[in-house]
Amino acid sequence: MVNATGAVAADVLVEGEKIAALLTPGFAIAADRVVDAAGKYVIPGGIDAHTHMEMPFGGTFSADTFASGTTAAAWGGTTTIIDFAVQAKGTSLMSTLDKWHTKADGNCAVDYGFHMIVSDVNDTSLKEMESCADAGVNSFKMFMAYPGVFYATDGEILRAMQKAREIGGTVMMHAENGIAIDQLVAQALARGRTAPVEHGLTRPPELEGEATSRAITLAAVTGAPLYVVHLSAAQALDAVARARDTGQNVFAETCPQYLYLSLEDLAKPDFEGAKYVASPPLRPREHQAELWRGLRTNDLSVVSTDHCPFCFKDQKELGRGNFAKIPNGIPGVEHRVDLLHQGVVRGEISLERWVEISSTTPARMFGLHPRKGVIAPGADADVVVYDPRARQTISAATHHMAVDYSAYEGMELTGKVDTVLSRGRVVVDAEGFHGRIGHGRFLTRELNQYLV
Amino acid sequence: MVNATGAVAADVLVEGEKIAALLTPGFAIAADRVVDAAGKYVIPGGIDAHTHMEMPFGGTFSADTFASGTTAAAWGGTTTIIDFAVQAKGTSLMSTLDKWHTKADGNCAVDYGFHMIVSDVNDTSLKEMESCADAGVNSFKMFMAYPGVFYATDGEILRAMQKAREIGGTVMMHAENGIAIDQLVAQALARGRTAPVEHGLTRPPELEGEATSRAITLAAVTGAPLYVVHLSAAQALDAVARARDTGQNVFAETCPQYLYLSLEDLAKPDFEGAKYVASPPLRPREHQAELWRGLRTNDLSVVSTDHCPFCFKDQKELGRGNFAKIPNGIPGVEHRVDLLHQGVVRGEISLERWVEISSTTPARMFGLHPRKGVIAPGADADVVVYDPRARQTISAATHHMAVDYSAYEGMELTGKVDTVLSRGRVVVDAEGFHGRIGHGRFLTRELNQYLV
Amino acid sequence: MVNATGAVAADVLVEGEKIAALLTPGFAIAADRVVDAAGKYVIPGGIDAHTHMEMPFGGTFSADTFASGTTAAAWGGTTTIIDFAVQAKGTSLMSTLDKWHTKADGNCAVDYGFHMIVSDVNDTSLKEMESCADAGVNSFKMFMAYPGVFYATDGEILRAMQKAREIGGTVMMHAENGIAIDQLVAQALARGRTAPVEHGLTRPPELEGEATSRAITLAAVTGAPLYVVHLSAAQALDAVARARDTGQNVFAETCPQYLYLSLEDLAKPDFEGAKYVASPPLRPREHQAELWRGLRTNDLSVVSTDHCPFCFKDQKELGRGNFAKIPNGIPGVEHRVDLLHQGVVRGEISLERWVEISSTTPARMFGLHPRKGVIAPGADADVVVYDPRARQTISAATHHMAVDYSAYEGMELTGKVDTVLSRGRVVVDAEGFHGRIGHGRFLTRELNQYLV
Amino acid sequence: MVNATGAVAADVLVEGEKIAALLTPGFAIAADRVVDAAGKYVIPGGIDAHTHMEMPFGGTFSADTFASGTTAAAWGGTTTIIDFAVQAKGTSLMSTLDKWHTKADGNCAVDYGFHMIVSDVNDTSLKEMESCADAGVNSFKMFMAYPGVFYATDGEILRAMQKAREIGGTVMMHAENGIAIDQLVAQALARGRTAPVEHGLTRPPELEGEATSRAITLAAVTGAPLYVVHLSAAQALDAVARARDTGQNVFAETCPQYLYLSLEDLAKPDFEGAKYVASPPLRPREHQAELWRGLRTNDLSVVSTDHCPFCFKDQKELGRGNFAKIPNGIPGVEHRVDLLHQGVVRGEISLERWVEISSTTPARMFGLHPRKGVIAPGADADVVVYDPRARQTISAATHHMAVDYSAYEGMELTGKVDTVLSRGRVVVDAEGFHGRIGHGRFLTRELNQYLV
Repeated sequence: MVNATGAVAADVLVEGEKIAALLTPGFAIAADRVVDAAGKYVIPGGIDAHTHMEMPFGGTFSADTFASGTTAAAWGGTTTIIDFAVQAKGTSLMSTLDKWHTKADGNCAVDYGFHMIVSDVNDTSLKEMESCADAGVNSFKMFMAYPGVFYATDGEILRAMQKAREIGGTVMMHAENGIAIDQLVAQALARGRTAPVEHGLTRPPELEGEATSRAITLAAVTGAPLYVVHLSAAQALDAVARARDTGQNVFAETCPQYLYLSLEDLAKPDFEGAKYVASPPLRPREHQAELWRGLRTNDLSVVSTDHCPFCFKDQKELGRGNFAKIPNGIPGVEHRVDLLHQGVVRGEISLERWVEISSTTPARMFGLHPRKGVIAPGADADVVVYDPRARQTISAATHHMAVDYSAYEGMELTGKVDTVLSRGRVVVDAEGFHGRIGHGRFLTRELNQYLV
Repeated sequence: MVNATGAVAADVLVEGEKIAALLTPGFAIAADRVVDAAGKYVIPGGIDAHTHMEMPFGGTFSADTFASGTTAAAWGGTTTIIDFAVQAKGTSLMSTLDKWHTKADGNCAVDYGFHMIVSDVNDTSLKEMESCADAGVNSFKMFMAYPGVFYATDGEILRAMQKAREIGGTVMMHAENGIAIDQLVAQALARGRTAPVEHGLTRPPELEGEATSRAITLAAVTGAPLYVVHLSAAQALDAVARARDTGQNVFAETCPQYLYLSLEDLAKPDFEGAKYVASPPLRPREHQAELWRGLRTNDLSVVSTDHCPFCFKDQKELGRGNFAKIPNGIPGVEHRVDLLHQGVVRGEISLERWVEISSTTPARMFGLHPRKGVIAPGADADVVVYDPRARQTISAATHHMAVDYSAYEGMELTGKVDTVLSRGRVVVDAEGFHGRIGHGRFLTRELNQYLV
Repeated sequence: MVNATGAVAADVLVEGEKIAALLTPGFAIAADRVVDAAGKYVIPGGIDAHTHMEMPFGGTFSADTFASGTTAAAWGGTTTIIDFAVQAKGTSLMSTLDKWHTKADGNCAVDYGFHMIVSDVNDTSLKEMESCADAGVNSFKMFMAYPGVFYATDGEILRAMQKAREIGGTVMMHAENGIAIDQLVAQALARGRTAPVEHGLTRPPELEGEATSRAITLAAVTGAPLYVVHLSAAQALDAVARARDTGQNVFAETCPQYLYLSLEDLAKPDFEGAKYVASPPLRPREHQAELWRGLRTNDLSVVSTDHCPFCFKDQKELGRGNFAKIPNGIPGVEHRVDLLHQGVVRGEISLERWVEISSTTPARMFGLHPRKGVIAPGADADVVVYDPRARQTISAATHHMAVDYSAYEGMELTGKVDTVLSRGRVVVDAEGFHGRIGHGRFLTRELNQYLV
Repeated sequence: MVNATGAVAADVLVEGEKIAALLTPGFAIAADRVVDAAGKYVIPGGIDAHTHMEMPFGGTFSADTFASGTTAAAWGGTTTIIDFAVQAKGTSLMSTLDKWHTKADGNCAVDYGFHMIVSDVNDTSLKEMESCADAGVNSFKMFMAYPGVFYATDGEILRAMQKAREIGGTVMMHAENGIAIDQLVAQALARGRTAPVEHGLTRPPELEGEATSRAITLAAVTGAPLYVVHLSAAQALDAVARARDTGQNVFAETCPQYLYLSLEDLAKPDFEGAKYVASPPLRPREHQAELWRGLRTNDLSVVSTDHCPFCFKDQKELGRGNFAKIPNGIPGVEHRVDLLHQGVVRGEISLERWVEISSTTPARMFGLHPRKGVIAPGADADVVVYDPRARQTISAATHHMAVDYSAYEGMELTGKVDTVLSRGRVVVDAEGFHGRIGHGRFLTRELNQYLV
């Protein structure tokens, strides 16, 4: 049994949906069913704090429904996702939340929560942030990128942060200087540079570093907690590390794609690069080592997927001849736990740190602890038996996400999910998927436990 | 039940010396004896990783025997100490270890381990470091202070670090530039400045910062893990934080005296200041906030006491008329858990962090985990029931350490130890001490679990 | 004779408008007129690289005309000013330049150049930057503050910087996050906080630091040289220092008001604080020491005045009841050289550094060297004899600026201008002003000499 | 005519030993002799602040006498050297100074001063530092390297710094952790690693960085000015840059060998590497760019040669079979001005910066200004006419230093000394050397002009 602070040999007794007891091996208690985990790890179910199911983007929708996406998550040992409700300009936060509840309710294979994307900052929506928090959604994502779509001005960010501080909420930030980037994009297109790699070249890492620094300053001025999503660049990590050294409430996540993929993938010929278009973009390879280091030093506290799947055919292809029209996103909810375990195999992180960044910290960061994120009496019985010696090869041919390619096609991994319990129910085992669409429940979340 | 990653409501079932199970409340299992912890915290027993019992210093000995010191520890919720075996120049490490085993064996009320102070670096002692590690002592303390006594040259430190790296051991460092300090001490005495406060003024924080930086560089050159003991100065913390940002295996502890006491105490009139003489010295008050911040950012990972009690009468008084002759040390083993809980009360640290810095991290840092440092099935049943609402006042009149003063005399605290189990045995409860001298066992330690 | 690299005893021979020779004392050359500078300093005439004469602002104009402003400059030992031509939205840069030429031509007592304020970034104005440079105006000021007036978006800044890099020009930046500040201003007014001190409180130093960092990043991304104007906050200085450590072409100026005045002045009762309203605002007193340090370390390279005089009566009074309507600006062109000499008197800077920051560096930074900024053969005979022992008291009753108050009223200074030559002509001496409105000529400027 | 702050067209009139006047071209004054510098630079004579003529080292002497060394200097446009008087343990500073006066007096072709190497810190030598300063020698070099020879403990450094602060002197530091290095050297030799490259590998750059930081801290604690000699490593530069950012009186020089040569040279086969043995050692190539950057940012203020020539034959060969016995030193006094001009050619530094780091700053740093370091009325007529377009190839076959090899053999340079005046006398011109051994005079030096 591996928790974030260490591994012990123990049996886990489940009663109904909960963990009833942890027992030293051999301590005899009768059980209806026994899952033998000898030689394997027993870990808390993974928590992916950043997914986008059925998300509207540029006239299309991300390809996974809540049903297909949460099923894929379960296959990969992730028993909780936190998805984003997306406020459309001119609509209210609460109606947005309702809309997302409608999408998800009865359609999920594992438990789920929501963050709220605030696209429209005004007196009404600021007031509604309180109602959201009361409804269990106390983390609010804003964008310094995507002018005209999600973009918020520094003044709007300031106001939302003031409100977040007031209610104990956390502001999540997509930190790229979209205003400057849009100029670079327009210039590249004007010069006839239309290939997918231009997506990366027009979004230089300095402009992620800049926006991250700016968000940190605004957070310092307002006193709000800040969580930087999908951090990809060494410059941004440096800004986060400096802020954290001062004790400011600044946190950051990175994603598997930034740890394993690079600008070279974006540069693949024949429009193949489109598969790797996400924002922030994949970075030159040398950033990867910095990110692994950040995971070790805890300047990066969480790894989420930013799962946002668009099929290559018909969706990614919208951007042929204009990289700016390629839907942004990379699928990954199914492979996060495996890809991070690969970091253990390679010696980048310890076993405990693997559990911490993939489950315990997201649970504590997003107010799901102690229901989720640990194996402890009283916790939800979201338990994964993980076989550290099994081998697997990632492929679109075998994955369970509703998308026609894999960004990790052909990658060979050591370690594989063996058995998955979601609230006491075995949803995945050697024989396949036993879960049920509709089993997953909405999670109202408490405040961030890391605030001081 | 509070562990380092969160609190849950649970019952702890003890069988013999071990924790047999953790159970959700109401899960009925018969027990011979029930300790009611309702409304209180159940935490893993404290681990004080830095004590000096019966330590020879300047012709006298620290006042606590292993018996009195470990009894006081138990009273304060500390169920494990790691003391220092002190190599005298010209003697061997293994004979030193034997000598300390003789001192401690059969005389301890709680479990104990040893670090080894290496005073004499040569081919023999370097080779003996391997035997020490085999004997469960794999952390080696060296001094950049105290020339002529414990002082090691940078060349000796380099060699010891090379060996530590080879065997996976950790070098612990007293980081003050003793060579420069000795000049300042001599100059002060030559000018007739003999009062206790001069002890602080002749050991400026910059010279702790310098030595810390130097130790970090030597660790980087050799690849050895470094643990900086009793860090007291913002300058040293800054050096540690920068090293940790790079991912280097550098760790640091501070002590309660640096969090609560200051240079003003050293300046108390009528030789009262002598009670506060320790090295590094108490610092100006503004360093305290930096140290609390360091505990929050994990740049300081552990709080130990550097418990080194000398009675005011006859011992501290040796330095009347010459501050340099005051035995160095402040008693504290009994109050560490309480003083750190006071940090929770004041909002400096979270409840979980309290458990982490006082028990879980020292256990993992010094290879005692999972036997110690967590409440988990299979762990030693070192369990403390802590009453967070009880009030107490620290005083030499009531403490259990064998020393005639308290550095915290009259300090009022919220929170108090209620019941203490050491390996399953109730050693302290409301009725008093029920432990037994000789109950405590020597702990052979594994390697530091934080190394990457 | 004091130059930026040292002082020597020498005679300066002037022929016509130029310095013809520097001679060792006693080297006999006949001269028509001899100015005896025994016991005094002979220094190159001051260069104030940041003034605003007759500037439109919020419906009024800064109170000094080019005639009165340059006369006051001459009185204070400043023989060159660089003023700002202000593009109005919707107008062209070249017509703006013409307009400013019309204002200044024939109206100046000393020589002058122009920077160009770019308010409207578009294809035309970007192209016009080339014409400006050809016309001797190669420095372009932009604003991250004042949304709706001068404010440029990061995308506009990016484009202007790209052009500046192309033509070797320098972008000058007013670095405050005006978008966030405007929210704070609106919130203060909404709460009925209308006094002048609110001007300071709603523009926190962190938001100057942020904007400075952002400008530096945009400069790094584009490769453009950056000159940060009127730097006032330690946070901004820190950003500049870090960029300069990397060797980036980043420069900064501060102003006398930030060295000598503080937020306390802004808080003066009875609307007196309005006299001190400028942007960035006066900072808490502790920033002053940081700025002096920056002048010593050359992280601040220049001291200009940002001379922008508005009379208290009728002008500053526009903001009674609403601090946001107080015209921004503090008069100072007359006292810069004296106030900086006071830094020599107080031991903050050396004599050579005084000359460097008030004359030599602005000359080299803004392409006036070697015509201006040094006492050397061939240079314009802009020479000041300065009496380091004379005493004076600053007062609106005696100053020559066309404004009804002095921000330094009653301040006693050691050192005073004795004699001033502008292109060989004595314009000020003990008997008064001998200059002529119209004597001053427009200076076409070369590129920044500090670029690497 | 190029000075540190800019270039102007001017004639230089020399009378006797001094510069009598600077004149605009065409200003007719009769002269006995005219040196035509049309198309060439007229610059102040170079000042090499770090040479070792006839220096005892490990049983031999550096190969240049004051006569040969200063003649070579003149050939290369250097008209002033500052050499080191070397206190032997157990001797007095003043007798050391006498001894060095005896060596140099009447034997120099150009002017010279002395620094004092303090090898033996005690009450007497500390007191003698005052006499040295009175005798025009106010800079005192100490070593953190070479244990048993020049090495000073941190306590000795502290005491000398206290005295330096008292008298306004500067402590010059050889900053390498010699105590740690000696262990690495012994280990390498014990493993049979005896080749010259081991000299570099056993002196890692981290240990230069460490010692530099330590020296800076000791300087901060004592308030003494610090000048770090022959800085070679990025880590040391980083320490200097951070100290300078705080405004501390910390200065540093580098040397041409660290700008152009690298560890690869030390690794040349057949003992060729011995030619490149100096301490600190040549560094991996990537340090060079950092050093050039440091010259641009003024974190490196001076370039000296550390000229210390040992012939390959008989001298360097003492270390065959044991790199530790290779005399430390690289010849270079003749080529410093040329090698730095090459930095202008390559765009690393500006023309003015070339003059500044090779002449003006050393003059001001070491109290020779305004006699030396500038072309100004009243200054010594040490003037160099430099032809920026001439080409030359460095070779031992043609150089004038008394050493049988050149570290830059075959290197092609653009730029060459044309004519050299030392105190008004043409000592080198197209026809050759016209100087006179004995012409050079001892220079008593004033205090560092950069202190604040």
